[in-house]
Amino acid sequence: MNANTIVVRREVNEKQKIDADELRQTFAERGTLVVNLVSSPGAGKTALLEATAKAMGDRLRMAVLVGDLETDRDAQRLQPLMPTVQLTTGGACHLELPLVRRGLAALGDQPVDILFIENVGNLVCPASFDLAEHVRVVLVSTTEGDDKPGKYPKIIRTSHAMVVSKTDLLPHVPFSVDSVIADAERIQPELTFHKVSAIDGTGVEEWCRFLTEKHRALTVDVREVECS
Amino acid sequence: MNANTIVVRREVNEKQKIDADELRQTFAERGTLVVNLVSSPGAGKTALLEATAKAMGDRLRMAVLVGDLETDRDAQRLQPLMPTVQLTTGGACHLELPLVRRGLAALGDQPVDILFIENVGNLVCPASFDLAEHVRVVLVSTTEGDDKPGKYPKIIRTSHAMVVSKTDLLPHVPFSVDSVIADAERIQPELTFHKVSAIDGTGVEEWCRFLTEKHRALTVDVREVECS
Repeated sequence: MNANTIVVRREVNEKQKIDADELRQTFAERGTLVVNLVSSPGAGKTALLEATAKAMGDRLRMAVLVGDLETDRDAQRLQPLMPTVQLTTGGACHLELPLVRRGLAALGDQPVDILFIENVGNLVCPASFDLAEHVRVVLVSTTEGDDKPGKYPKIIRTSHAMVVSKTDLLPHVPFSVDSVIADAERIQPELTFHKVSAIDGTGVEEWCRFLTEKHRALTVDVREVECS
Repeated sequence: MNANTIVVRREVNEKQKIDADELRQTFAERGTLVVNLVSSPGAGKTALLEATAKAMGDRLRMAVLVGDLETDRDAQRLQPLMPTVQLTTGGACHLELPLVRRGLAALGDQPVDILFIENVGNLVCPASFDLAEHVRVVLVSTTEGDDKPGKYPKIIRTSHAMVVSKTDLLPHVPFSVDSVIADAERIQPELTFHKVSAIDGTGVEEWCRFLTEKHRALTVDVREVECS
């Protein structure tokens, strides 16, 4: 990689950051909290969204853009619960902003309080792509092992919250919730932690309150900006 | 991407393929079977290697190159069981051949019957990189959900064998072994399947026999080539 390549890459990155910041601000002005869910394959992003939709009821209006390499399996699960758009990357290992914009166009103008973006299942590459989210949430399931934060530090460092998922399986797996939290806090001290089982409902109400509070703070922040 | 870019990329890909084929042949001539283990984070690659080392005893001499973004946690677990070299990618989402070559240099000239390469935990990107392996093995754990093959088809299509790992958790998770096998066979009909629990030992002996047979076939093939 020569000096010219590095300069071009920096310019591309800066352009992407500006684009994401502008879109993030637009979402905030509309009162839409954007939540980017990232995790390993099968950590339970779709199951968490199913449980969230059922528990949230009509408190907030939700919608989801679902990223996958192939198939619309996750979208089929979520379609009955909230407005859903499948984003198929055609093999790419993460979502990027242009594909998110196409998803937004497909969603149309319906009012949305929380827009979830369910990223491709991958604990590495999605860490490097800003999708204009206000909150990045990384799921780590109890079945993956409590050593994952240190092994995948960038996705932990760039997240705002961590969901420890599949807590119903804790009696059956060698996993310490305290260890995984300590490992993650060492990398990102500002993370909030949410212990959730989408199967037995543990922690789902607390997680919904977290989302509701984030949505409330977003709209308060925007009003404060408008008043100043 | 313009036409020149495409031509350059094709040449790079062809060069990588030739390099990998040459190294694969060198391994075969030395009687070393190379097994590239790929999976999501936490599907149990390291646990499978621990169980394999204990079950295999002194039947075959094994060594491992362990790929991770950061930390040497997996290498620390395997070091007591077989010669182990940690390959740290510094954030990159997969292993590539030049890093494998550096690992080989660190291993030195000791005779090895099976060289495992434990790839970075990622069900997407490692699919695209030939590490000179003779056998690519994809692990899908019972806790990830039985819908994963269709959602991550390239890694299934490029694999020779699939280990369904963590079978001890089958009573506790919504997972059908028949469904995951049917989904994978639709993508890659030549896969072999191995149901394994590194915790309770289920299937470990069958998996060791599979490796032993692959090693035997490799050395027979090489002898046949030499005689012709």
